[in-house]
Amino acid sequence: METLNGVAELNGNGRPKEKLNGLPPQVLVEAPRAARREASITELSGLQPVVARRAIHIATERLFHVTDVTEDCQELVAESGVKEGMLSVFSQHTTCAIKINERETCFLEDLRLFMEALVPQEAYYRHDDFEIRDHATLAGTVEEEPINGHAHIKQMLLGSASESVPVADGTLRLGTWQRIMFIELDQARNRKVQLQVQGWR
Amino acid sequence: METLNGVAELNGNGRPKEKLNGLPPQVLVEAPRAARREASITELSGLQPVVARRAIHIATERLFHVTDVTEDCQELVAESGVKEGMLSVFSQHTTCAIKINERETCFLEDLRLFMEALVPQEAYYRHDDFEIRDHATLAGTVEEEPINGHAHIKQMLLGSASESVPVADGTLRLGTWQRIMFIELDQARNRKVQLQVQGWR
Amino acid sequence: METLNGVAELNGNGRPKEKLNGLPPQVLVEAPRAARREASITELSGLQPVVARRAIHIATERLFHVTDVTEDCQELVAESGVKEGMLSVFSQHTTCAIKINERETCFLEDLRLFMEALVPQEAYYRHDDFEIRDHATLAGTVEEEPINGHAHIKQMLLGSASESVPVADGTLRLGTWQRIMFIELDQARNRKVQLQVQGWR
Repeated sequence: METLNGVAELNGNGRPKEKLNGLPPQVLVEAPRAARREASITELSGLQPVVARRAIHIATERLFHVTDVTEDCQELVAESGVKEGMLSVFSQHTTCAIKINERETCFLEDLRLFMEALVPQEAYYRHDDFEIRDHATLAGTVEEEPINGHAHIKQMLLGSASESVPVADGTLRLGTWQRIMFIELDQARNRKVQLQVQGWR
Repeated sequence: METLNGVAELNGNGRPKEKLNGLPPQVLVEAPRAARREASITELSGLQPVVARRAIHIATERLFHVTDVTEDCQELVAESGVKEGMLSVFSQHTTCAIKINERETCFLEDLRLFMEALVPQEAYYRHDDFEIRDHATLAGTVEEEPINGHAHIKQMLLGSASESVPVADGTLRLGTWQRIMFIELDQARNRKVQLQVQGWR
Repeated sequence: METLNGVAELNGNGRPKEKLNGLPPQVLVEAPRAARREASITELSGLQPVVARRAIHIATERLFHVTDVTEDCQELVAESGVKEGMLSVFSQHTTCAIKINERETCFLEDLRLFMEALVPQEAYYRHDDFEIRDHATLAGTVEEEPINGHAHIKQMLLGSASESVPVADGTLRLGTWQRIMFIELDQARNRKVQLQVQGWR
């Protein structure tokens, strides 16, 4: 197993155990204390079940092209008439991520710089090494196959294939700063984002 | 594109390609072999559809304040009467994570130290640089805006906005060591965790 | 708070602020432009609600044993008869990940090497230090407790406990290259993957 310089110090590796033992944990772990709670139970048997879908075709322009699909999601919830249910946003791609966070260019540029430093595009990846890779796994010829080993690793770190958001009383329950974003982690490509609202109206 | 010292060696970058070619992959990739399987199909048409919600208001005290909301989730499933369905735990915040893992203070302190080393709080983030950031994106004045560029990156690495757990035969199907935790990645703030059980009773 | 050599340079820490200020962001953030959209709304009230489950018992052989459960998922959708709904793949374990990506050995070996460099198995973890850990949290005796601090961190970075995939018109809506994979992040262990399809048939 490889231990690489400059990374080995993460986790306190290489620091004396005694020193760590002497420090109390700073993490605070507990059940909710004296928390205020609000609750509701809603019977749905007077409502009709429905599923509504929208696919958005996007031609991304480059690595870290971020597409904000929040308004599409809100429109779909409104069109569907769903009062109580769940929105699912799904990506059928292996080198893109669906993420919910703030739409703020400086933060997203921080994220881009961070991810490029952690998983550099021009590092060596076996996935891009056609001398060792099984050619049966290629999409077509070696020339057609994208050089995107870095993008697969970025997808594994950043994303799941989908995000889910509750719909309550006809409204998508996003927080003030939350936006639903589709992030291209590979090069310019034709992509499709799949929205699905399932619930009761 | 920046390649930074000490990070560039990740992924085998800088190591001779020949050496990597000579090593067989240690990863084992396959379909399930001779696996035992259990299956069931349950018709729900004799049951009534219902959605139950609980919001928990939490005043977090600091970075890496971890709140274990598992008992709230179990109580909500019991109160809802749902026999078959899905629990969703959702955070409306952009600098918190919902995670399911072991509630063990030493592990969570390992995680805190690891995340602080990987995404240091006091590094430079454009998100916190009010000389370059678009002031239209601020929550209020520059003074009111939290300095939390690190927390947004941590959220992107650690979390999705939600986690889902199946409910079967009236029971939340968590594993022995799994606890549902809400993790503060920013400073002390007022937070809200949203639980939703949707299913049939 | 620790700032460790070799990691501190991530995020541009240590680089002059002026230089960063001079660079325009390369990230591109926008709403979908001139995107083609397809939409549908399907009433479900003529259909019957159903939930189908399958548990797959897997004896993993080592760290980064990857089990492709896609065919099990497709079989369950077919057996359930569900036309419109959602598949959920859930892991009851705290040191495994459910991920959807390409089943390609070279990429998965890249991921293994990357994760081992980032979260080395033999680094120091408080979770494995039985001199400081609360013995009440152990599964049994100190000898029985797995040494797996690294695996918990890897789980937190890579995975959520579950992945969800839409089922539309009786078909699991995976992309061409997407496979649903269960990844062992600890040592050889007995594991169980839980599949659940909930929907209408």
